[in-house]
Amino acid sequence: MITGQNHIGFERSAKGAKLFKTFNPKLNIENSIKFHEASSEEIDNAVSLAWKAFQSYQNYSGERKGDFLNAIADEIEALGQELISVYCEESGLPEGRAMGERGRTMFQLRTFAELVKKGDWVNAHIDTAQPDRAPLAKPDIRKMMIPLGPVVVFGASNFPLAYSTAGGDTAAALAAGCPVIVKSHPMHAGTGELVASAINKAAEKTGMPDGVFSNLNSSGIEVGVQLVQHPKVKAVGFTGSIKGGRALYDLASKREEPIPVFAEMGSVNPVVFLPEALKERGDDLAKTYAGSVTLGAGQFCTNPGLLLGLKDSNLEQFVNTLSEEIVKIEPGCMLHPNIIGAYEMNKGKALAQQGLQMVAEYDQEVGANVARQAVTTVEGDTFLQNPALHQEVFGPFTMVVQCKDKEQLEAIIFKMEGQLTGTLIAKGDEASAYPGVIEALKNRVGRIIFNGVPTGVEVCPSMVHGGPYPASTDSRFTAVGINSIKRWVRPFSYQDWPDSLLPDALQNENPLGIIRLVNNQLTSESI
Amino acid sequence: MITGQNHIGFERSAKGAKLFKTFNPKLNIENSIKFHEASSEEIDNAVSLAWKAFQSYQNYSGERKGDFLNAIADEIEALGQELISVYCEESGLPEGRAMGERGRTMFQLRTFAELVKKGDWVNAHIDTAQPDRAPLAKPDIRKMMIPLGPVVVFGASNFPLAYSTAGGDTAAALAAGCPVIVKSHPMHAGTGELVASAINKAAEKTGMPDGVFSNLNSSGIEVGVQLVQHPKVKAVGFTGSIKGGRALYDLASKREEPIPVFAEMGSVNPVVFLPEALKERGDDLAKTYAGSVTLGAGQFCTNPGLLLGLKDSNLEQFVNTLSEEIVKIEPGCMLHPNIIGAYEMNKGKALAQQGLQMVAEYDQEVGANVARQAVTTVEGDTFLQNPALHQEVFGPFTMVVQCKDKEQLEAIIFKMEGQLTGTLIAKGDEASAYPGVIEALKNRVGRIIFNGVPTGVEVCPSMVHGGPYPASTDSRFTAVGINSIKRWVRPFSYQDWPDSLLPDALQNENPLGIIRLVNNQLTSESI
Repeated sequence: MITGQNHIGFERSAKGAKLFKTFNPKLNIENSIKFHEASSEEIDNAVSLAWKAFQSYQNYSGERKGDFLNAIADEIEALGQELISVYCEESGLPEGRAMGERGRTMFQLRTFAELVKKGDWVNAHIDTAQPDRAPLAKPDIRKMMIPLGPVVVFGASNFPLAYSTAGGDTAAALAAGCPVIVKSHPMHAGTGELVASAINKAAEKTGMPDGVFSNLNSSGIEVGVQLVQHPKVKAVGFTGSIKGGRALYDLASKREEPIPVFAEMGSVNPVVFLPEALKERGDDLAKTYAGSVTLGAGQFCTNPGLLLGLKDSNLEQFVNTLSEEIVKIEPGCMLHPNIIGAYEMNKGKALAQQGLQMVAEYDQEVGANVARQAVTTVEGDTFLQNPALHQEVFGPFTMVVQCKDKEQLEAIIFKMEGQLTGTLIAKGDEASAYPGVIEALKNRVGRIIFNGVPTGVEVCPSMVHGGPYPASTDSRFTAVGINSIKRWVRPFSYQDWPDSLLPDALQNENPLGIIRLVNNQLTSESI
Repeated sequence: MITGQNHIGFERSAKGAKLFKTFNPKLNIENSIKFHEASSEEIDNAVSLAWKAFQSYQNYSGERKGDFLNAIADEIEALGQELISVYCEESGLPEGRAMGERGRTMFQLRTFAELVKKGDWVNAHIDTAQPDRAPLAKPDIRKMMIPLGPVVVFGASNFPLAYSTAGGDTAAALAAGCPVIVKSHPMHAGTGELVASAINKAAEKTGMPDGVFSNLNSSGIEVGVQLVQHPKVKAVGFTGSIKGGRALYDLASKREEPIPVFAEMGSVNPVVFLPEALKERGDDLAKTYAGSVTLGAGQFCTNPGLLLGLKDSNLEQFVNTLSEEIVKIEPGCMLHPNIIGAYEMNKGKALAQQGLQMVAEYDQEVGANVARQAVTTVEGDTFLQNPALHQEVFGPFTMVVQCKDKEQLEAIIFKMEGQLTGTLIAKGDEASAYPGVIEALKNRVGRIIFNGVPTGVEVCPSMVHGGPYPASTDSRFTAVGINSIKRWVRPFSYQDWPDSLLPDALQNENPLGIIRLVNNQLTSESI
């Protein structure tokens, strides 16, 4: 049941005077429940409790943390239809998407549970002593990853489950041994509260310390600002706009003790279509991309907002087919009136730029908050000269840039801001004639895709979801996959430490049976 | 031969009007050579050349980069006695130290050469496709580490070789595939120029691209500021003061595209002496610590500046012996008049605080720039209440804090700023009675040492040299050991990429024979 209260550890609390409601974009009405924005006192309580919880939770075994993560997945599943219904009411997204995203969320939790139960992730390194080494004896040094401290997670508007309350950031931080305080997304505060109750139920059932998780409601920026500035908060995870992510990064860097902010932000996800591929299967590609651009009403961070090709008849034909195909697709309801408002405004701003042509836009009657998908084109010269055209239009919008030659194509990619993904569409070994294009793409993105679509982010160890700024604030980390745990941990060395006082992962006997780098050799043997 | 010129890639250049000289602290006179500070144009040339070099160097094989690094070590050795003499003239440090540090520098270079020749460090992950997976086919995704781009390295005043021109930061960045621009330290510009010439000689001999390395002279902050703000610089390494490191961090965070700054800064390296240990061998410990505090005139980042114990007769005896022993040691010449000036000023500031007692100070006549080592004491209550006493006094200075009980000891550690190291001195299993002290230390440091001294930083995979702020600006990385390469790289994914276009590290056949995580199993087999 949704109460509109905050979760401060295991307690519920509603001391704040500021109230807000979520919105049903499909029905175009406010939902009924009133949420209490967290007060300054409640924020401080949540962080202090997280700090206290950290003192014990940081040393919990992988087995215990894994049980907790699996229990969260179970409790989310046990929320049943209520969660699915509230998700749909607050997002306008269809039930199938809700079910799929719930499955992904549970998969992420269970994947991290498996990771920490297995235990190798701590990256244990052991260099044994050489007391007789000349001129100086070599000490025994052992290293492993340990958690940073309380982590604040900002939920994403476009993933109410998989990148919000119990999403990837939270799962990774809890797996690392960091308590989590979620600043709940105001657009899906009810979904957030349900998931928060599942997390705390799981925490109580599996004997986790009070404060290992808190969920704070907020409708403006105040709660987030206070959280990021709190001295006991040690890291921040964010998924959202460049403006929002950068503001948090700036706040965190100005602290007396700066803390890491991993913000996954905007991206137009350039796709390069090489001429032979367009010649061979331009129509199929156009159909595929009409689907990719409009998937989830274009509300994916990997949405292909920029299509690049060499100006010729094949590209022209591709644009024609893309235009025909995209208007056949039933337009989708966006998450919130603010989001569709921003979509229409940014689309308008782009079209106000000289040289950008609208070539297709859905023109049938649509319901409230439903986004009309659009295809635009522009010449390479114009695009190169006008940075306003490089801005993301978040939603079912794409821009086809017609480059005059290979050199211009390379120049455009080189000039682009950092991106989550880049895609190359080529026929056979056509790609090998474009080494400059591939190198340029590699320099600007976190993931390159061959003959595919950027939408769809597989959760696996090899995935990089992140990239050069502003795709993310620190390209050295990924927000998806098991390695995302690295955002919340630091290496720690023990020198000549007695075996009995070492954590299990570093003891001679290797009681966890994990793989360790011992004197430069990977092994799971004991010492 | 030292010319006073800058190295802009393979060219020498001296366009700047600003000249400066280095200083011989032992003789207390300026050295004769005039160095040309890099002009704004020269800085831009160096970065542009580095950017151009990056386009090819980033793809050089581990074998080639390893040859380059080994050649640098060879060329540094080939500088022979000239390097040792200039080092001593510019630092006042003894010849033995110069030789030792040269050895360490060469060892670091050769260690990174071995690392990149072996190749496993790229952390290759492969998840093969599952075309039949329901509901969605799983793509083939492969990930490895790739370099960030040109890196700026600020040399450390206290390590003219091992943490300067061809020191740990440079070796790690070149190994990663990043060109390096060194902002040479003004106090040892001659040593820097000699080493720079060795690096560029090695680069030419091994066929590296022009611009893979540049060395810029500077006497003030302007060169560093321009470098950190340059859009084509992608990361910064720094070793030095909190003030300097923080200033660079702030500049980098305010850029349109923020970049990572790894600054290794101040630390007082707390040492906790438990009572039984002091009772058993307090005199030996006092002798050992008299040596550690004065080693290298106290000019090590791991110098033990804060000694903590429970107030009793054993601690009193320890302080007495430490006082007697420390004044027996011949005082050392500091690196520069500015550094001894700061030492005396900071010592004076500390002693001006109420409650800090001077219990021993070297009082014989000393030469110019020679630092008088000092031992001070303070009550735990006083220390807890006065943050001015927590500041580092860089030099041969230490403060013994007499805590009234175990709880106060814990409280003091909890309140400390982040540190590079923490040390616990205990007898037998005495330590197991102090879990709170150990936990508190763990939270504040990057490395904990048992029954040893913090000075001496072993170069090995298990070493962490870094720690919570302000020990470093990002505790998630180390500045020493092979893992320090992680500061300069980012993960990068290839999705469904053709085998022939993949880098060697990710190809099916595994031509490099490296260890990879393939479908969650570590293996060096081909696919």
